[in-house]
Amino acid sequence: MAEFKYIAPDHIEERSMEIIEEQLGDIKISPENKTVLKRVIHTTADFDYVKNLRFSDGAVKIGIDALKNGAHIITDTSMALSGINKRILGSLGGEAHCFIADPTVAETAKARGVTRASAAVEYACSLGDDLIFAVGNAPTALIKLDEMIKAHRIMPKLVIAVPVGFVNVVEAKELIMENGVPYIAAAGNKGGSNVAAAICNALLYMIKR
Amino acid sequence: MAEFKYIAPDHIEERSMEIIEEQLGDIKISPENKTVLKRVIHTTADFDYVKNLRFSDGAVKIGIDALKNGAHIITDTSMALSGINKRILGSLGGEAHCFIADPTVAETAKARGVTRASAAVEYACSLGDDLIFAVGNAPTALIKLDEMIKAHRIMPKLVIAVPVGFVNVVEAKELIMENGVPYIAAAGNKGGSNVAAAICNALLYMIKR
Repeated sequence: MAEFKYIAPDHIEERSMEIIEEQLGDIKISPENKTVLKRVIHTTADFDYVKNLRFSDGAVKIGIDALKNGAHIITDTSMALSGINKRILGSLGGEAHCFIADPTVAETAKARGVTRASAAVEYACSLGDDLIFAVGNAPTALIKLDEMIKAHRIMPKLVIAVPVGFVNVVEAKELIMENGVPYIAAAGNKGGSNVAAAICNALLYMIKR
Repeated sequence: MAEFKYIAPDHIEERSMEIIEEQLGDIKISPENKTVLKRVIHTTADFDYVKNLRFSDGAVKIGIDALKNGAHIITDTSMALSGINKRILGSLGGEAHCFIADPTVAETAKARGVTRASAAVEYACSLGDDLIFAVGNAPTALIKLDEMIKAHRIMPKLVIAVPVGFVNVVEAKELIMENGVPYIAAAGNKGGSNVAAAICNALLYMIKR
């Protein structure tokens, strides 16, 4: 027979974070990166992210500053869009967007034989540079971003590079980790829309709850 | 320098599934359960699900039959709701619902000091028995379901029991695996809204694409 500890609804997350903190032990990581890591583990229960999650220098502070200045978040799936805390984002002046189902994007993708994720990145770049990309699904979104960054067509404030999968995923994340853009990335095959949303929320919760 | 294999957008999923199939090797699992397992790994890149994913006898067929008969899907997060293929579900006569943000549910939860997930389960049960519950986040939803099943207040067609986390999660999934309801569950701490949606979609894609 299973036995439950009663924990008041308001304290479940707090207790979860304590358990994660205990299991992490004495790892070498900065406090702000650890806050992001803990939220990713809270979302996945997967401690592989201890070794997989990578941060460019100062990425968390850069992301927080961008959000405080009203940066918008561009995601590649409606699931990630759904998971992002839009109440806090909106209170800072930002919005979250996913253009993957936009009819213009679909047409462009079909005409060019590219993924909708790739066409959606190009479309999003028309919003300017005050953008954080949160990519949890499509490596082709990262490949397109890399191409546009190298062509000086955009320099996002931060790229959250956490697509999951087996086709070109590892390589696409490596491109982002090498091209000079600030990043938070999950090296290897793992990641996902839930991880992308969790990282966005970790940054937002460091600003306010 | 990263190198990419060009794969046409339409073939990325097919190629991913081939890679997963190769990595699975000769595991002992029925073809229909394997189809579900492969989609969960496709969504997470996490092969732990080979040992974690559990199916009651005939659960996949039971789920498929229910969906063909127009069963509705109840999820505990807007993220899972967002990830479920509602085009196919709708074509079968079903709908996907998430009552977690419903004002009545929020009021009930506050008044009783229970989680909104728990109150949402009770609310959903008023829809009848033609329901598949897809729980990716809240163990309290499973605890409530178990209580209502034992009280003969509901018998869902299938419970997809895959909440992720560290507080009462393992125990809540064990309740569902022991109370006689057909289930697809992720034993242990892992799971998530993405996994819940992936399992729903695996069932839906076995009916049509």
